[in-house]
Amino acid sequence: MNHQQLFSKIVEKRSFLCVGLDSEIDKIPAFLKKLKNPVYEFNKRIIDATQEHAVAYKPNLAFYESLGSEGWHTLELTVKYIRKNYPGIFIIADAKRGDIGNTSKMYAKAFLENMDFDAVTVAPYMGEDSVTPFLSYNDKWVVLLALTSNKGADDFQYHDEDGIKLFERVLTVSRKWGSLDNLMFVVGATRAEMLKDIRKIVPGHFLLVPGVGAQGGSLAEVAKYGMTNKCGLLVNSSRGIIFADSSENFAKVAAEKAGEMHLEMECHLKERNLI
Amino acid sequence: MNHQQLFSKIVEKRSFLCVGLDSEIDKIPAFLKKLKNPVYEFNKRIIDATQEHAVAYKPNLAFYESLGSEGWHTLELTVKYIRKNYPGIFIIADAKRGDIGNTSKMYAKAFLENMDFDAVTVAPYMGEDSVTPFLSYNDKWVVLLALTSNKGADDFQYHDEDGIKLFERVLTVSRKWGSLDNLMFVVGATRAEMLKDIRKIVPGHFLLVPGVGAQGGSLAEVAKYGMTNKCGLLVNSSRGIIFADSSENFAKVAAEKAGEMHLEMECHLKERNLI
Repeated sequence: MNHQQLFSKIVEKRSFLCVGLDSEIDKIPAFLKKLKNPVYEFNKRIIDATQEHAVAYKPNLAFYESLGSEGWHTLELTVKYIRKNYPGIFIIADAKRGDIGNTSKMYAKAFLENMDFDAVTVAPYMGEDSVTPFLSYNDKWVVLLALTSNKGADDFQYHDEDGIKLFERVLTVSRKWGSLDNLMFVVGATRAEMLKDIRKIVPGHFLLVPGVGAQGGSLAEVAKYGMTNKCGLLVNSSRGIIFADSSENFAKVAAEKAGEMHLEMECHLKERNLI
Repeated sequence: MNHQQLFSKIVEKRSFLCVGLDSEIDKIPAFLKKLKNPVYEFNKRIIDATQEHAVAYKPNLAFYESLGSEGWHTLELTVKYIRKNYPGIFIIADAKRGDIGNTSKMYAKAFLENMDFDAVTVAPYMGEDSVTPFLSYNDKWVVLLALTSNKGADDFQYHDEDGIKLFERVLTVSRKWGSLDNLMFVVGATRAEMLKDIRKIVPGHFLLVPGVGAQGGSLAEVAKYGMTNKCGLLVNSSRGIIFADSSENFAKVAAEKAGEMHLEMECHLKERNLI
């Protein structure tokens, strides 16, 4: 999927919602735990219930790896389930990988080739040769960490050389490694006020924005400061949707929460005359 | 294992060698590929052949993840094999993880609890709350990226605020998060000349040093500038040992290569009167 195709999908769905599949086994409804693969059963129901509101899903690798090889298998099944039942959905491996070239190449193979994800999140600390192996696949994307949504973002991301903060340097330097069609950036919604300046550096790139909902970020502010004339935003919500309810109604409630975000996103897209 | 115990193991083995299990399926000897689990068979033979020379093994996650859930299972088997047959060996998950707090907590569970690794490599970009969940396990370690061995290290790690480079800031800030007993740092052997300055910031911490061998770093320089009175070094070699030969003799040749490094390490330990 390239930039234009992703934008077309957003227009078609009238949404730029990414649902984070942070499917922690201890938090999924008790009744599912009697089934053979509770996490997969949970994911299927969440996906079925929310897919009309979402353009993307983002499994968070940690929650699968914490279940060992079975968890990894659940991840594989989940990607296949989305591909089979909802073609055209954008799927992001939230893996935060990044290593020396020959190693990143193997991570890229794992996620973009073997498992057929559309994108993988990558940490920039190790620089160009740790990122470019992920950019060698046609129609696949790197989602590079720039300014994250957590408290620890303050520790290093604002480190300032001659007025240029580290996250700004990451944006400035790395945008040359890829294009609008294969490189997007993570910018946390909890830093929405920074989006105005960030858009001066990467005016056209898609941004993956976590931190709306459970982490306290505002969708309205993200849309106000971050939206481009091709939308340019994927806004993620994980816990605020998938764990909104823990009863047998969890999927219905998840759909309601996703629907609320969908409705608000539709307004923002209309305001900009994008739909 | 704490700092003193790791040093004792180094004294006992007269070596500070870490063997990197970057067990890429396309590079393992052809005759093993007829067996049921070629990577596991390769790892067992490499471990059996090199264990007398090594204090640590470091599976590189990418090479297991690229084989999907079966690869992950191979990783689990490999750790169990080392634990069962060679207790006291230090095992590092070279995973380069790091995410917001609740996610890092799950990664920590995956590696330090479920799989019983002694340590996991972590990327510092997301700051304190992305690292500290890994530090909450007794006798387990974080190996934090500081100055890596690849070319891309130049892109961001030298970003300089008032004379303090990013990797120096990572060392200075993060050393407060843990102790000599649970925090070590990655410093590439290809940057051995930097070790003198790095030792001014972290005089006592263990350093995990990749880049000797295939990447061109010098063991003598690493020992000269990086060794402490508790050794303070784990020097890793991966491809230079495990892929030194691709015939049926591969394990024997791997043992010879590991033995050569062992011998040189023994000399450096003697020079410092540590053995």
